[in-house]
Amino acid sequence: MRRFKLSRAFTLIEPGPVVLVTTHDGGKNNVMTISWTMVVDFTPRYAITTGEWNYSFAALRKSRECVIAIPTVDMLDQVVGIGTCSGRDTDKFDGFKLTPVRGRFVKAPLIKECLANIECKVVDIVRRHNIVVLEGLVAYMDIARKDRRTIHGVGDGTFIVDGRRLDRRRMMASKIPEGI
Amino acid sequence: MRRFKLSRAFTLIEPGPVVLVTTHDGGKNNVMTISWTMVVDFTPRYAITTGEWNYSFAALRKSRECVIAIPTVDMLDQVVGIGTCSGRDTDKFDGFKLTPVRGRFVKAPLIKECLANIECKVVDIVRRHNIVVLEGLVAYMDIARKDRRTIHGVGDGTFIVDGRRLDRRRMMASKIPEGI
Repeated sequence: MRRFKLSRAFTLIEPGPVVLVTTHDGGKNNVMTISWTMVVDFTPRYAITTGEWNYSFAALRKSRECVIAIPTVDMLDQVVGIGTCSGRDTDKFDGFKLTPVRGRFVKAPLIKECLANIECKVVDIVRRHNIVVLEGLVAYMDIARKDRRTIHGVGDGTFIVDGRRLDRRRMMASKIPEGI
Repeated sequence: MRRFKLSRAFTLIEPGPVVLVTTHDGGKNNVMTISWTMVVDFTPRYAITTGEWNYSFAALRKSRECVIAIPTVDMLDQVVGIGTCSGRDTDKFDGFKLTPVRGRFVKAPLIKECLANIECKVVDIVRRHNIVVLEGLVAYMDIARKDRRTIHGVGDGTFIVDGRRLDRRRMMASKIPEGI
Protein backbone atom coordinates (compact mmCIF):
# COMPACT_ATOMS: atom_id res chain seq x y z
CA MET A 1 0.00 0.00 0.00
CA ARG A 2 1.24 3.40 -1.00
CA ARG A 3 0.26 6.72 0.50
CA PHE A 4 -2.68 8.27 -1.35
CA LYS A 5 -3.15 12.02 -1.36
CA LEU A 6 -5.49 12.83 1.54
CA SER A 7 -7.17 15.62 -0.41
CA ARG A 8 -8.25 13.02 -2.98
CA ALA A 9 -9.50 10.50 -0.42
CA PHE A 10 -13.09 11.77 -0.70
CA THR A 11 -13.13 10.37 -4.25
CA LEU A 12 -13.05 6.89 -2.68
CA ILE A 13 -16.24 7.52 -0.67
CA GLU A 14 -18.22 9.86 -2.96
CA PRO A 15 -19.23 7.16 -5.50
CA GLY A 16 -21.00 5.35 -2.65
CA PRO A 17 -19.28 1.95 -2.40
CA VAL A 18 -19.91 -0.37 0.48
CA VAL A 19 -17.00 0.01 2.92
CA LEU A 20 -15.47 -1.87 5.80
CA VAL A 21 -14.89 0.06 9.02
CA THR A 22 -12.31 -1.33 11.42
CA THR A 23 -11.98 -0.55 15.10
CA HIS A 24 -9.76 -1.55 18.02
CA ASP A 25 -11.32 -1.59 21.48
CA GLY A 26 -8.07 -1.69 23.43
CA GLY A 27 -7.99 -5.49 23.32
CA LYS A 28 -8.99 -6.70 19.90
CA ASN A 29 -9.67 -5.71 16.31
CA ASN A 30 -13.12 -5.71 14.77
CA VAL A 31 -14.62 -4.78 11.42
CA MET A 32 -18.12 -3.97 10.18
CA THR A 33 -19.70 -3.55 6.76
CA ILE A 34 -21.30 -0.14 6.16
CA SER A 35 -23.27 1.11 3.15
CA TRP A 36 -24.59 4.21 4.88
CA THR A 37 -21.74 6.67 4.27
CA MET A 38 -21.46 10.20 2.90
CA VAL A 39 -18.77 12.77 2.21
CA VAL A 40 -19.50 15.92 4.24
CA ASP A 41 -16.46 18.05 3.46
CA PHE A 42 -13.32 18.08 1.36
CA THR A 43 -11.18 18.67 4.45
CA PRO A 44 -11.75 15.55 4.35
CA ARG A 45 -14.73 14.63 6.47
CA TYR A 46 -17.09 11.70 6.09
CA ALA A 47 -20.29 10.71 7.87
CA ILE A 48 -21.36 7.15 8.59
CA THR A 49 -24.59 5.98 10.15
CA THR A 50 -24.12 3.50 12.98
CA GLY A 51 -25.27 2.97 16.54
CA GLU A 52 -25.71 0.54 19.40
CA TRP A 53 -27.02 -2.11 16.98
CA ASN A 54 -23.45 -2.51 15.70
CA TYR A 55 -21.06 -4.13 18.19
CA SER A 56 -18.28 -1.96 16.69
CA PHE A 57 -20.05 1.19 17.84
CA ALA A 58 -18.85 0.83 21.45
CA ALA A 59 -15.22 0.66 20.28
CA LEU A 60 -15.74 3.55 17.88
CA ARG A 61 -17.23 5.71 20.61
CA LYS A 62 -14.60 4.77 23.18
CA SER A 63 -11.49 4.95 20.99
CA ARG A 64 -12.81 7.77 18.79
CA GLU A 65 -10.94 6.36 15.81
CA CYS A 66 -11.37 3.87 12.99
CA VAL A 67 -10.19 2.93 9.52
CA ILE A 68 -12.43 3.09 6.45
CA ALA A 69 -11.29 0.34 4.07
CA ILE A 70 -12.58 0.08 0.49
CA PRO A 71 -13.16 -3.50 -0.68
CA THR A 72 -13.46 -4.54 -4.32
CA VAL A 73 -15.81 -6.89 -6.12
CA ASP A 74 -13.64 -9.98 -5.54
CA MET A 75 -14.20 -9.44 -1.79
CA LEU A 76 -18.01 -9.45 -2.01
CA ASP A 77 -18.56 -12.66 -0.06
CA GLN A 78 -16.24 -11.45 2.69
CA VAL A 79 -18.10 -8.11 2.78
CA VAL A 80 -21.48 -9.85 3.09
CA GLY A 81 -20.13 -12.33 5.64
CA ILE A 82 -18.66 -9.53 7.78
CA GLY A 83 -22.00 -7.70 7.60
CA THR A 84 -24.02 -10.68 8.76
CA CYS A 85 -22.16 -11.72 11.92
CA SER A 86 -21.04 -9.87 15.03
CA GLY A 87 -17.67 -9.11 16.55
CA ARG A 88 -19.31 -9.93 19.87
CA ASP A 89 -18.75 -13.64 19.21
CA THR A 90 -16.55 -13.73 16.08
CA ASP A 91 -12.96 -12.80 15.32
CA LYS A 92 -13.76 -11.42 11.88
CA PHE A 93 -10.16 -10.74 10.81
CA ASP A 94 -9.37 -14.38 11.43
CA GLY A 95 -12.68 -15.77 10.17
CA PHE A 96 -12.68 -13.80 6.92
CA LYS A 97 -8.95 -14.07 6.26
CA LEU A 98 -8.26 -10.35 6.47
CA THR A 99 -4.71 -9.23 7.20
CA PRO A 100 -4.53 -6.38 9.72
CA VAL A 101 -1.81 -3.82 9.00
CA ARG A 102 -0.65 -1.33 11.59
CA GLY A 103 -1.71 2.23 10.84
CA ARG A 104 0.22 5.38 11.41
CA PHE A 105 -2.11 7.42 13.62
CA VAL A 106 -4.78 5.05 14.87
CA LYS A 107 -4.88 1.65 16.61
CA ALA A 108 -7.65 0.38 14.34
CA PRO A 109 -5.98 -1.76 11.66
CA LEU A 110 -5.78 -1.17 7.94
CA ILE A 111 -6.93 -4.14 5.83
CA LYS A 112 -4.20 -5.35 3.52
CA GLU A 113 -6.62 -6.98 1.05
CA CYS A 114 -8.58 -3.76 0.40
CA LEU A 115 -8.07 -1.36 -2.49
CA ALA A 116 -7.70 1.63 -0.19
CA ASN A 117 -7.65 2.51 3.50
CA ILE A 118 -8.27 5.80 5.29
CA GLU A 119 -7.26 6.29 8.92
CA CYS A 120 -9.90 8.43 10.63
CA LYS A 121 -10.67 10.08 13.94
CA VAL A 122 -14.19 10.67 15.22
CA VAL A 123 -14.91 14.40 15.30
CA ASP A 124 -18.54 14.22 16.40
CA ILE A 125 -21.37 11.80 17.09
CA VAL A 126 -24.81 13.22 16.30
CA ARG A 127 -26.68 10.86 18.62
CA ARG A 128 -30.21 11.84 17.60
CA HIS A 129 -29.57 10.59 14.06
CA ASN A 130 -26.89 7.95 14.77
CA ILE A 131 -24.52 9.87 12.51
CA VAL A 132 -20.79 9.66 13.23
CA VAL A 133 -18.65 12.36 11.62
CA LEU A 134 -15.08 11.30 10.82
CA GLU A 135 -12.00 13.19 9.72
CA GLY A 136 -9.49 11.48 7.46
CA LEU A 137 -5.89 11.58 8.75
CA VAL A 138 -3.96 9.65 6.12
CA ALA A 139 -4.97 7.50 3.13
CA TYR A 140 -3.40 4.56 1.32
CA MET A 141 -4.00 2.83 -2.01
CA ASP A 142 -2.92 -0.58 -3.28
CA ILE A 143 -1.57 0.62 -6.59
CA ALA A 144 -0.59 -2.91 -7.69
CA ARG A 145 -4.22 -4.05 -7.72
CA LYS A 146 -5.61 -4.62 -11.20
CA ASP A 147 -9.35 -4.95 -10.62
CA ARG A 148 -10.39 -1.75 -8.89
CA ARG A 149 -14.14 -2.19 -9.29
CA THR A 150 -16.02 -1.46 -6.06
CA ILE A 151 -19.48 -2.67 -5.09
CA HIS A 152 -22.62 -0.76 -4.13
CA GLY A 153 -25.07 -2.28 -1.68
CA VAL A 154 -28.67 -1.88 -2.78
CA GLY A 155 -30.10 -2.92 0.59
CA ASP A 156 -32.26 -5.75 -0.72
CA GLY A 157 -29.47 -8.34 -0.79
CA THR A 158 -28.18 -7.38 -4.22
CA PHE A 159 -25.05 -5.43 -5.09
CA ILE A 160 -24.20 -3.31 -8.13
CA VAL A 161 -20.66 -3.59 -9.45
CA ASP A 162 -18.88 -0.56 -10.93
CA GLY A 163 -19.34 -0.39 -14.69
CA ARG A 164 -17.61 1.94 -17.07
CA ARG A 165 -16.31 5.38 -16.21
CA LEU A 166 -17.45 8.49 -18.07
CA ASP A 167 -15.30 11.62 -18.17
CA ARG A 168 -16.90 15.04 -17.70
CA ARG A 169 -13.81 16.76 -16.31
CA ARG A 170 -14.01 19.59 -18.81
CA MET A 171 -17.67 20.38 -18.06
CA MET A 172 -17.03 20.07 -14.32
CA ALA A 173 -13.83 22.15 -14.24
CA SER A 174 -15.36 24.98 -12.18
CA LYS A 175 -16.51 22.57 -9.46
CA ILE A 176 -13.50 20.32 -8.98
CA PRO A 177 -11.39 21.28 -5.95
CA GLU A 178 -7.88 22.43 -6.79
CA GLY A 179 -5.28 19.68 -7.05
CA ILE A 180 -7.78 16.86 -7.64
CA MET B 1 -44.71 7.21 -12.89
CA ARG B 2 -46.20 4.60 -10.61
CA ARG B 3 -46.18 4.62 -6.84
CA PHE B 4 -43.18 2.78 -5.44
CA LYS B 5 -43.34 1.17 -2.01
CA LEU B 6 -42.01 3.75 0.45
CA SER B 7 -40.37 1.08 2.58
CA ARG B 8 -38.25 0.14 -0.46
CA ALA B 9 -37.30 3.73 -1.32
CA PHE B 10 -34.01 3.51 0.61
CA THR B 11 -32.83 1.00 -2.03
CA LEU B 12 -32.74 3.93 -4.48
CA ILE B 13 -30.33 5.93 -2.28
CA GLU B 14 -28.25 3.21 -0.63
CA PRO B 15 -26.18 2.33 -3.75
CA GLY B 16 -24.94 5.95 -3.75
CA PRO B 17 -26.08 7.38 -7.10
CA VAL B 18 -25.85 11.07 -7.85
CA VAL B 19 -29.31 12.56 -7.30
CA LEU B 20 -31.22 15.69 -8.21
CA VAL B 21 -32.92 17.57 -5.38
CA THR B 22 -35.78 19.87 -6.34
CA THR B 23 -37.17 22.72 -4.27
CA HIS B 24 -39.88 25.36 -4.57
CA ASP B 25 -39.27 28.67 -2.84
CA GLY B 26 -42.86 29.91 -3.00
CA GLY B 27 -42.28 31.47 -6.40
CA LYS B 28 -40.25 29.17 -8.57
CA ASN B 29 -38.83 25.68 -8.94
CA ASN B 30 -35.15 24.90 -8.64
CA VAL B 31 -33.00 21.80 -8.76
CA MET B 32 -29.49 20.91 -7.62
CA THR B 33 -27.16 17.97 -8.20
CA ILE B 34 -26.05 16.19 -5.02
CA SER B 35 -23.58 13.32 -4.61
CA TRP B 36 -23.29 13.66 -0.84
CA THR B 37 -26.24 11.56 0.34
CA MET B 38 -26.74 8.75 2.83
CA VAL B 39 -29.54 6.56 4.12
CA VAL B 40 -29.89 7.07 7.88
CA ASP B 41 -32.92 4.92 8.65
CA PHE B 42 -35.37 2.54 7.03
CA THR B 43 -38.33 4.65 8.22
CA PRO B 44 -37.24 6.05 5.58
CA ARG B 45 -34.78 8.82 6.38
CA TYR B 46 -31.97 10.18 4.27
CA ALA B 47 -29.23 12.71 4.94
CA ILE B 48 -27.81 15.10 2.38
CA THR B 49 -24.95 17.53 2.80
CA THR B 50 -25.73 21.04 1.60
CA GLY B 51 -25.48 24.59 2.85
CA GLU B 52 -25.39 28.26 1.97
CA TRP B 53 -23.10 27.53 -0.98
CA ASN B 54 -26.09 26.00 -2.77
CA TYR B 55 -28.75 28.50 -3.83
CA SER B 56 -31.37 25.78 -3.24
CA PHE B 57 -30.49 25.67 0.45
CA ALA B 58 -32.52 28.80 1.25
CA ALA B 59 -35.64 27.27 -0.31
CA LEU B 60 -35.00 23.95 1.42
CA ARG B 61 -34.62 25.62 4.79
CA LYS B 62 -37.66 27.87 4.30
CA SER B 63 -40.08 25.36 2.78
CA ARG B 64 -38.70 22.39 4.73
CA GLU B 65 -39.48 20.09 1.83
CA CYS B 66 -37.93 18.78 -1.38
CA VAL B 67 -37.99 15.96 -3.88
CA ILE B 68 -35.08 13.56 -4.38
CA ALA B 69 -35.09 12.49 -8.03
CA ILE B 70 -32.90 9.66 -9.34
CA PRO B 71 -31.46 10.32 -12.82
CA THR B 72 -30.06 7.62 -15.09
CA VAL B 73 -26.96 7.47 -17.27
CA ASP B 74 -28.67 9.01 -20.31
CA MET B 75 -29.19 12.16 -18.20
CA LEU B 76 -25.50 12.60 -17.30
CA ASP B 77 -24.98 15.83 -19.23
CA GLN B 78 -28.10 17.34 -17.66
CA VAL B 79 -26.91 16.24 -14.22
CA VAL B 80 -23.49 17.84 -14.75
CA GLY B 81 -25.04 20.97 -16.27
CA ILE B 82 -27.43 21.36 -13.34
CA GLY B 83 -24.52 20.94 -10.94
CA THR B 84 -22.40 23.62 -12.57
CA CYS B 85 -24.83 26.55 -12.72
CA SER B 86 -27.00 28.30 -10.13
CA GLY B 87 -30.75 28.73 -9.76
CA ARG B 88 -29.90 32.28 -8.74
CA ASP B 89 -29.66 33.25 -12.41
CA THR B 90 -30.91 30.17 -14.30
CA ASP B 91 -34.29 28.50 -14.71
CA LYS B 92 -32.86 25.00 -14.65
CA PHE B 93 -36.11 23.16 -15.40
CA ASP B 94 -36.43 25.20 -18.59
CA GLY B 95 -32.72 25.25 -19.44
CA PHE B 96 -32.20 21.52 -19.00
CA LYS B 97 -35.54 20.42 -20.46
CA LEU B 98 -36.85 18.86 -17.29
CA THR B 99 -40.60 18.41 -16.94
CA PRO B 100 -41.90 19.34 -13.48
CA VAL B 101 -44.73 17.13 -12.21
CA ARG B 102 -46.90 18.11 -9.29
CA GLY B 103 -46.28 16.03 -6.18
CA ARG B 104 -48.80 14.82 -3.66
CA PHE B 105 -47.49 16.24 -0.38
CA VAL B 106 -44.88 18.85 -1.31
CA LYS B 107 -44.68 21.89 -3.57
CA ALA B 108 -41.26 20.92 -4.88
CA PRO B 109 -41.79 19.24 -8.25
CA LEU B 110 -41.10 15.66 -9.27
CA ILE B 111 -38.97 15.32 -12.41
CA LYS B 112 -40.76 13.37 -15.11
CA GLU B 113 -37.55 12.32 -16.89
CA CYS B 114 -36.05 10.65 -13.81
CA LEU B 115 -36.18 6.95 -12.98
CA ALA B 116 -37.62 7.58 -9.53
CA ASN B 117 -38.77 10.42 -7.29
CA ILE B 118 -39.18 10.64 -3.52
CA GLU B 119 -41.18 13.46 -1.92
CA CYS B 120 -39.47 14.45 1.33
CA LYS B 121 -39.87 16.75 4.30
CA VAL B 122 -36.95 18.21 6.24
CA VAL B 123 -36.89 16.73 9.75
CA ASP B 124 -33.70 18.37 10.96
CA ILE B 125 -30.78 20.50 9.86
CA VAL B 126 -27.52 19.75 11.68
CA ARG B 127 -25.95 23.13 11.02
CA ARG B 128 -22.49 22.38 12.40
CA HIS B 129 -21.99 19.72 9.72
CA ASN B 130 -24.29 21.09 6.97
CA ILE B 131 -26.27 17.85 7.15
CA VAL B 132 -29.98 17.98 6.28
CA VAL B 133 -32.04 15.00 7.45
CA LEU B 134 -35.06 14.19 5.28
CA GLU B 135 -38.00 11.88 5.71
CA GLY B 136 -39.53 10.24 2.65
CA LEU B 137 -43.30 10.73 2.32
CA VAL B 138 -44.11 8.95 -0.94
CA ALA B 139 -42.04 7.45 -3.75
CA TYR B 140 -42.57 6.89 -7.46
CA MET B 141 -40.86 4.81 -10.14
CA ASP B 142 -40.99 5.05 -13.92
CA ILE B 143 -41.61 1.37 -14.53
CA ALA B 144 -41.66 1.80 -18.32
CA ARG B 145 -38.02 2.86 -18.40
CA LYS B 146 -35.70 0.29 -19.92
CA ASP B 147 -32.26 1.59 -19.01
CA ARG B 148 -32.23 1.88 -15.23
CA ARG B 149 -28.49 2.32 -14.79
CA THR B 150 -27.67 5.14 -12.40
CA ILE B 151 -24.43 7.12 -12.17
CA HIS B 152 -22.01 7.62 -9.30
CA GLY B 153 -20.06 10.86 -9.04
CA VAL B 154 -16.42 10.31 -8.17
CA GLY B 155 -15.77 13.96 -7.40
CA ASP B 156 -12.90 14.42 -9.84
CA GLY B 157 -15.11 15.07 -12.86
CA THR B 158 -15.61 11.40 -13.72
CA PHE B 159 -18.69 9.25 -13.16
CA ILE B 160 -19.05 5.49 -12.72
CA VAL B 161 -22.02 3.87 -14.41
CA ASP B 162 -23.82 0.93 -12.79
CA GLY B 163 -22.45 -2.37 -14.02
CA ARG B 164 -23.87 -5.79 -13.36
CA ARG B 165 -25.88 -6.77 -10.33
CA LEU B 166 -24.83 -9.61 -8.03
CA ASP B 167 -27.36 -11.44 -5.88
CA ARG B 168 -26.51 -12.28 -2.26
CA ARG B 169 -30.09 -12.35 -0.99
CA ARG B 170 -29.73 -15.77 0.55
CA MET B 171 -26.56 -14.86 2.49
CA MET B 172 -28.10 -11.54 3.53
CA ALA B 173 -31.50 -12.90 4.57
CA SER B 174 -31.05 -12.12 8.27
CA LYS B 175 -30.25 -8.46 7.53
CA ILE B 176 -32.88 -7.53 4.96
CA PRO B 177 -35.82 -5.63 6.45
CA GLU B 178 -39.15 -7.44 6.23
CA GLY B 179 -41.10 -6.88 3.01
CA ILE B 180 -38.05 -5.77 0.97
